[in-house]
Amino acid sequence: MATLSNRQTVRIRWGDCDPAGIIFYPRDLEIFDNAVALLFERVLGITKHDMFKAYEFAGWPLVRTHLRFLKPTRFGDDVEVETSIKFGRSSFDIEHKLSLEGELCVECEEKRVWVVRNANGAIKSHPIPEAVLRKFGV
Amino acid sequence: MATLSNRQTVRIRWGDCDPAGIIFYPRDLEIFDNAVALLFERVLGITKHDMFKAYEFAGWPLVRTHLRFLKPTRFGDDVEVETSIKFGRSSFDIEHKLSLEGELCVECEEKRVWVVRNANGAIKSHPIPEAVLRKFGV
Amino acid sequence: MATLSNRQTVRIRWGDCDPAGIIFYPRDLEIFDNAVALLFERVLGITKHDMFKAYEFAGWPLVRTHLRFLKPTRFGDDVEVETSIKFGRSSFDIEHKLSLEGELCVECEEKRVWVVRNANGAIKSHPIPEAVLRKFGV
Amino acid sequence: MATLSNRQTVRIRWGDCDPAGIIFYPRDLEIFDNAVALLFERVLGITKHDMFKAYEFAGWPLVRTHLRFLKPTRFGDDVEVETSIKFGRSSFDIEHKLSLEGELCVECEEKRVWVVRNANGAIKSHPIPEAVLRKFGV
Repeated sequence: MATLSNRQTVRIRWGDCDPAGIIFYPRDLEIFDNAVALLFERVLGITKHDMFKAYEFAGWPLVRTHLRFLKPTRFGDDVEVETSIKFGRSSFDIEHKLSLEGELCVECEEKRVWVVRNANGAIKSHPIPEAVLRKFGV
Repeated sequence: MATLSNRQTVRIRWGDCDPAGIIFYPRDLEIFDNAVALLFERVLGITKHDMFKAYEFAGWPLVRTHLRFLKPTRFGDDVEVETSIKFGRSSFDIEHKLSLEGELCVECEEKRVWVVRNANGAIKSHPIPEAVLRKFGV
Repeated sequence: MATLSNRQTVRIRWGDCDPAGIIFYPRDLEIFDNAVALLFERVLGITKHDMFKAYEFAGWPLVRTHLRFLKPTRFGDDVEVETSIKFGRSSFDIEHKLSLEGELCVECEEKRVWVVRNANGAIKSHPIPEAVLRKFGV
Repeated sequence: MATLSNRQTVRIRWGDCDPAGIIFYPRDLEIFDNAVALLFERVLGITKHDMFKAYEFAGWPLVRTHLRFLKPTRFGDDVEVETSIKFGRSSFDIEHKLSLEGELCVECEEKRVWVVRNANGAIKSHPIPEAVLRKFGV
């Protein structure tokens, strides 16, 4: 059975917030970037750090992202982040939903590509390894 | 004549970059957020800090944004950021183009709303003041 | 009995790390700043956000800090942060110890002052409220 | 003649500031980290990025730092940062002074070590190359 989503609770910190007292929105993207790593970690059983050794893998650079901000969050808020993935051949689509007490605050869609390093160290797109897909059950 | 864009050069710093050696993309959004403030500052002649005193103004929260990442940038790069604005009644659209040596690296579109604080301190959407629009020549 | 320390586990994230692959050290300070809030939250039972309403309190600005970096940490590391406090009259001293698998990585000492806002909105030093000290058992 | 200091102006941005409206102090450390790179760049004539290729060099990790915060800075402030260096054999001492309109706001002392990578990729302390010291005139 496919495991294609993950859920985590994240504390919004004082230092994540701006003079308006609400989260400085690039910090939402930091949360989302980490959420991708946590989804893979949950399914593969290893951290992103160890993925570099375990798989043909040199990262998942973001190609494009679209964000909608519906409701601000504040320091002290414990928000819930739900992250789901849909695999392509050498890329994947991510959807994040950040909510506070059941109310959707931020919605984010991402397209990321799976890359490896070629002989001279440059990165290039590469099919997502079968071993990874199998773990996700796809 | 309308002044509806601004251009600045930004140095990508070591601390803006991630273990892949390229800019950690939420840092692009930090650059873009600041670019909005710099555009207004250039046209109004005062910083965002002083706008809170000079105008009916409590911020320009982001409603949605769309980003395309075409080419990575690295620490030591001096990138050029061109930011242009299109005014609505109580919101505005921003377009940022971040380039390195003439090559487009990141494209960003934003919709932001002009807000003020009401009597109890909550923010609410508000028409962009005439005095602001006049300075922009629109 | 006095409760004068707190312990938490923190995940070092990809975006906390620099091109050397290790944590960009200002991120250690972000962790430590939040650790102060978590210690008070644990003892007072409310977040820093609610402390502004519950107490004569407008923040605990840092006056000075001293840091020693003994061992780098990397993305994927789950570090342990132990934070302890020693109260003065209107200031307090904090000590943070950040460890990985029992090995000390970063040591940080801080002096912070308790501040309130006066009538015109400026902040000024103020004795730490009795109600706060009592909760800590001092 | 020795060139052992550098001076730059830095804009404090909205996103550098916290809900108190003043700079979130880890951002001061981001400014200081970059100031070290700018000092070397000014003297060596190449960016930190190119130093990795031009010299036996794998970074200058921070060993310890001491900071004093005297006066807060706010978004919109253009602060002046003066950075000076004193070389040891395989380490160097840095002093940063961050001022606003001639008034000292933050003082920072750092000890950093010059490192290279050995055969297996680990970093180790190494004497600062003569070619570097010569450029500084020491």
